[in-house]
Amino acid sequence: MKPIDALVSSLPEGRVLTDPDVIDSYARDRTFVAPGKPLGVVLAASRDDVVTTMRWATEHRVPVVPRGGGSGLAGAAVAGDGSIVLSLARMNAIRELSPADEIAVVEPGVITADLDRAAREHGLMYAPDPSSYEISTIGGNLATNAGGLRCVKYGVTRDSALGLEVVLADGRVIETGRRTMKGVTGYDLTGLFVGSEGTLGVITAATVRLRRAPAAPPATFAAEFGSLRDAGAAVSAIMAAGCQPSLMELIDRASLEALDDWLNIGLEPDTQATLIGQSDATDSQAVVERMERLCLENGASFVAVSTSPQEAEELIRLRRLDYQAKERLGACLVEDVCVPRSLLPDMITAIEETSARHGVKILTVAHAGDGNLHPVFIFDRGMPEPPAEVWAAADEVFKRALELGGTLTGEHGVGLLKRRWLDLESGPVVTEVQQGIKAVFDPLGILNPGKAI
Amino acid sequence: MKPIDALVSSLPEGRVLTDPDVIDSYARDRTFVAPGKPLGVVLAASRDDVVTTMRWATEHRVPVVPRGGGSGLAGAAVAGDGSIVLSLARMNAIRELSPADEIAVVEPGVITADLDRAAREHGLMYAPDPSSYEISTIGGNLATNAGGLRCVKYGVTRDSALGLEVVLADGRVIETGRRTMKGVTGYDLTGLFVGSEGTLGVITAATVRLRRAPAAPPATFAAEFGSLRDAGAAVSAIMAAGCQPSLMELIDRASLEALDDWLNIGLEPDTQATLIGQSDATDSQAVVERMERLCLENGASFVAVSTSPQEAEELIRLRRLDYQAKERLGACLVEDVCVPRSLLPDMITAIEETSARHGVKILTVAHAGDGNLHPVFIFDRGMPEPPAEVWAAADEVFKRALELGGTLTGEHGVGLLKRRWLDLESGPVVTEVQQGIKAVFDPLGILNPGKAI
Ligand SMILES: Cc1cc2nc3c(=O)[nH]c(=O)nc-3n(C[C@H](O)[C@H](O)[C@H](O)COP(=O)(O)OP(=O)(O)OC[C@H]3O[C@@H](n4cnc5c(N)ncnc54)[C@H](O)[C@@H]3O)c2cc1C
Ligand SMILES: Cc1cc2nc3c(=O)[nH]c(=O)nc-3n(C[C@H](O)[C@H](O)[C@H](O)COP(=O)(O)OP(=O)(O)OC[C@H]3O[C@@H](n4cnc5c(N)ncnc54)[C@H](O)[C@@H]3O)c2cc1C
Repeated sequence: MKPIDALVSSLPEGRVLTDPDVIDSYARDRTFVAPGKPLGVVLAASRDDVVTTMRWATEHRVPVVPRGGGSGLAGAAVAGDGSIVLSLARMNAIRELSPADEIAVVEPGVITADLDRAAREHGLMYAPDPSSYEISTIGGNLATNAGGLRCVKYGVTRDSALGLEVVLADGRVIETGRRTMKGVTGYDLTGLFVGSEGTLGVITAATVRLRRAPAAPPATFAAEFGSLRDAGAAVSAIMAAGCQPSLMELIDRASLEALDDWLNIGLEPDTQATLIGQSDATDSQAVVERMERLCLENGASFVAVSTSPQEAEELIRLRRLDYQAKERLGACLVEDVCVPRSLLPDMITAIEETSARHGVKILTVAHAGDGNLHPVFIFDRGMPEPPAEVWAAADEVFKRALELGGTLTGEHGVGLLKRRWLDLESGPVVTEVQQGIKAVFDPLGILNPGKAI
Repeated sequence: MKPIDALVSSLPEGRVLTDPDVIDSYARDRTFVAPGKPLGVVLAASRDDVVTTMRWATEHRVPVVPRGGGSGLAGAAVAGDGSIVLSLARMNAIRELSPADEIAVVEPGVITADLDRAAREHGLMYAPDPSSYEISTIGGNLATNAGGLRCVKYGVTRDSALGLEVVLADGRVIETGRRTMKGVTGYDLTGLFVGSEGTLGVITAATVRLRRAPAAPPATFAAEFGSLRDAGAAVSAIMAAGCQPSLMELIDRASLEALDDWLNIGLEPDTQATLIGQSDATDSQAVVERMERLCLENGASFVAVSTSPQEAEELIRLRRLDYQAKERLGACLVEDVCVPRSLLPDMITAIEETSARHGVKILTVAHAGDGNLHPVFIFDRGMPEPPAEVWAAADEVFKRALELGGTLTGEHGVGLLKRRWLDLESGPVVTEVQQGIKAVFDPLGILNPGKAI
């Protein structure tokens, strides 16, 4: 019997897909990275299915690639030759939602936005909101420690993760963390699994923290600036004034041009950046007026403010459509550096210089309140992957981010795409330690090999 | 040459203390746990001193007990026979404080309150505020993941830790984390060191997050309740209303009696609990009035409210003096269970029943917003350690907390005192994994052996 047949026969009927075309669609994420030829796809419907799969994989030494929504931007869910894709998408029950304790217990395949909607019915929210939240899963968010627009105020996925149920590489099951807000028993395994990109274990359930949803609709502003430095100064001033924006996004000139080409937004020739901010405080209108004032004091040429939900949607529409505008220009390498907030203008300036020097189109938006930038490198759609000059430009951007005291990846993760640069940030001893940790959880190296570390 | 002489001669003059009486005072924490006889105390003044000490310890297989302020309540800094106490207290420089990026880079020996004061000069604060903050160090806070009064709003020490410099057991130095608000490069080693009680490495520097200090003085209330259940309902109502208290403490009847015996606070015969809350929001007065209303709606017999700093101090004075009031009654075993917030009244009721059943005096205060309770078990001052009935009562309390979905320790840590109960919470596979992680960082087992896991 071939190993895959043993797997098929040890799982309930219909759990394993083996049609090559179907497999291929489960072997990719949202990057250009070409997958190998996996043996099959397991559509896990329960923790037991995951246990069975991992026991089998251990016995047969088969690499396993956990998969949520497949929306990743780092190649972390791309599956190689001879591997098994373990999809958690069908495990999508919200098992418990406790308004009294402001927690939910969920399966990993729950779509991020579905949990948020379920929480809203109780006046709560699930705060982490990657822009992909209609297609990404809680399991994938945990495995990548996803950020999002709201995290400038409410923190990243780590900050909402209280406890996990995890199936280890050999099929043993552990529970980490707790249902309580605080707790310090033993090493923080929850934190270790968060962001580990499926290389340490398969998350089969999570206890997450919910938060009170804001009572009133948010107030929003959009401001135009004639210089990046002014826009950066406005961001600093807004944060320093304690405004606590619930969203604070910066769009650079190159991105605005892409939007203007598509949607005719009436971009002024002098506008170098647009800054969009939101407050969801009880006194949101007053706060946004304060933010407006700070933008004007720091050189904004124009600021629009609104407290109506429709108009707010209109103001942040540019940000929402930004990625689509870029996709019209060609294939996109979406990058994700993060720098200390005050150095945001320096980083954008460096990106513009790199763009000019290498003749590579780079368009940048930033979660400005966090110092997290997404420069998007455009290349020819006909090419299977970014050409050398794009990587050369990206290399320069990564190195500059590190020089500024920043990091290679603020929220998308290392996956396959960033591994080449890891040593620049981490150094050899950290690498050795990370590999040691990996070996504790996965001594045979079958869990998502070649990713993250 | 004896090993200790080799250490003395490899460090700058005056770094090693060997007087037995002096050593003894460095070998204890704030528990009753009797230390052994360490070889000496290293007063590290630099990272190099720490590196030298760890290399020497590796060479000679000598256990090393890192030490900050020695304020721990779990026996984690208690040193055994033949060990070296490595005090970080002299490494107390604030190396950098950046208002623009809202971060500080500090040495581990900085006293918690000193960092907070330094931050206040720039309109910022260092949020984690264990009640011990005038005597505990940032290094100790990180190593225990300390909580405090403000963490109901601002999170625990983990939530303020961005990056660390750590000397490993063999003297190699690593840097974890970053200066940025977000980042997901590699496994979260920062989170792993936080709360590891000196068993994985010695923290020699930390980059921590600062926050905007509230602009206006806080508003405060103190409410008296005739039943624990009412007080618990008020806590739930306040949290559910999104009041975001910056402090929310509950004092039970037994603790109030101890305070009344000492200070004559005019305790009413019917009062079963006092709830003290604070808001530091811009509209703090309105918020505290809302909290007052919610207390009254949930059966409070009396509520005092104030916005003047002096009166606020008066209102939270009971909480501040609580521990001293208990120390008047005898020796104290300070415990630290945490339960889901809605089960706070159940947990306190269980504690009262245990107290009655075992004839052991137990007095409880709670960080009510977090569900974190500190039951204090009183025993005879003449005894070297808690007698059997105290441990039997504590055992019952721990088990009840776990039954309620809670944890053995919300913020004080496992140290020596909680190890007996660890398996109840963690289970054998987690224990095995934790030991595997320990072995990656400290294969010879010389770093604070016998603690935490
Ligand atoms: C348009 C668009 C916008 C985006 N915006 C954001 C953003 O704002 N912020 C952000 O952080 N990211 C963003 N992303 C990236 C991506 O959506 C996130 O990384 C997301 O968290 C991935 O979730 P997923 O369920 O799709 O995971 P997948 O892509 O399926 O997998 C990602 C990683 O998680 C692992 N994994 C998945 N499920 C599990 C599990 N149950 N147990 C263990 N490991 C598992 C996989 O092995 C892989 O390593 C965006 C992507 C797109 C396409
Ligand atoms: C009156 C009182 C009130 C308290 N209130 C609170 C409270 O509200 N919340 C709370 O969480 N705790 C509280 N505590 C407990 C204690 O203060 C905390 O655990 C504190 O974080 C310990 O800090 P320290 O510097 O005194 O550490 P120590 O007691 O010296 O050490 C504690 C642990 O940290 C390790 N350690 C210390 N420095 C380092 C370093 N640089 N590198 C690696 N490991 C290190 C030690 O080995 C030990 O395991 C209180 C204690 C007292 C006495």
